[in-house]
Amino acid sequence: MQIAVLLYDNFTTLDAVGPYELLARIPGAETVFVAKEPGPVRNDQRSLALVADKALADVPHPDIVLVPGGPDSREAMHDPEIRQWLRTADETSTWTTSVCTGSLILGAAGLLKGRRATTHWLAHEELRALGVEPTGERVVFDGKYVTAAGVSSGIDMALHLIGRIAGDEAAQTIQLLTEYDPQPPYDAGSPEKAPAAIVERWRGVKAEDLPQGG
Amino acid sequence: MQIAVLLYDNFTTLDAVGPYELLARIPGAETVFVAKEPGPVRNDQRSLALVADKALADVPHPDIVLVPGGPDSREAMHDPEIRQWLRTADETSTWTTSVCTGSLILGAAGLLKGRRATTHWLAHEELRALGVEPTGERVVFDGKYVTAAGVSSGIDMALHLIGRIAGDEAAQTIQLLTEYDPQPPYDAGSPEKAPAAIVERWRGVKAEDLPQGG
Repeated sequence: MQIAVLLYDNFTTLDAVGPYELLARIPGAETVFVAKEPGPVRNDQRSLALVADKALADVPHPDIVLVPGGPDSREAMHDPEIRQWLRTADETSTWTTSVCTGSLILGAAGLLKGRRATTHWLAHEELRALGVEPTGERVVFDGKYVTAAGVSSGIDMALHLIGRIAGDEAAQTIQLLTEYDPQPPYDAGSPEKAPAAIVERWRGVKAEDLPQGG
Repeated sequence: MQIAVLLYDNFTTLDAVGPYELLARIPGAETVFVAKEPGPVRNDQRSLALVADKALADVPHPDIVLVPGGPDSREAMHDPEIRQWLRTADETSTWTTSVCTGSLILGAAGLLKGRRATTHWLAHEELRALGVEPTGERVVFDGKYVTAAGVSSGIDMALHLIGRIAGDEAAQTIQLLTEYDPQPPYDAGSPEKAPAAIVERWRGVKAEDLPQGG
């Protein structure tokens, strides 16, 4: 089983690495980071680069496609090479997945038309504009298309996927070995739960215009 | 405020990237990934390399030191150059932190002697052997030393730290923008919660001997 994680300039690191860390532990999985060209790809914060070991053309038929988001996902949305790779990979993939505004990139490639999906809470309207039905859920399955909400939600998506792919026990084992027993000291992780004053300050800011992350 | 994230061969990616993704969003923070030599550093799963932009010698006095764990942390524990860098950096740091078996590396450098700290649940005895008092908590503060349990716990550690450094509102804002509202589909993230049969299969395996991650 081959898992391809797409990298592009300005991607959000945890969108990619959160689910990667768990999915790559599925027994027998082979994971490969891909980009237009092999080599370092710098993230949205500009303080970290991840290395794409392969070019898109080298990995045409992964079983799982994972697309992270980023504050400047517009560039990836409109890149013809990325679009074409996604369409081709999707023809034979078992699961086509995204985290955060990665769903805008899948949507721009036409892969989510008429489907239910999710994205960063600040990008719901942009997802709708692509002919996709945004939901408020943290992880959305619609057929083989699996989308997660903002940044950290990809970890939950990975556990759901591992359960479907390798069974509950494999998922629980990976949860135990990564000690994913979240205990955040605040309860501000969604617009419904965060203090209203903070939510209001950000609502209306487009995900793409955030200084970092999306 | 400068944050230095240590990379070394075989590190666990989410240990570093989880807290990085949140800490780097503190207004005014500058984050730099460091290693013995600048350049790509490959992780425990061997399917991903992160780029260290600077050598250890280039970043002698970070305000925050972050040490990720890894299944083969023994090598980093006994590396004289890493030890010396940690000791020097610790002399002037505001916070010296680790995730997972990163605390074994801090411990081997002599920085946690007699202190309370945590690590991956499979490495408690190894931490004790370094003269450190292991606790079952997910995030442990002892003075300026902050340690987190296995892999994913660094995200919780980051939120605690952001609260102390920049205040509750900054932490809640970063939690909201990264949508850290965990909803794992299983409740198996600690040895107390996971099915006993799974826990028993792993208990007694040293963190260093896990196929991946630690």
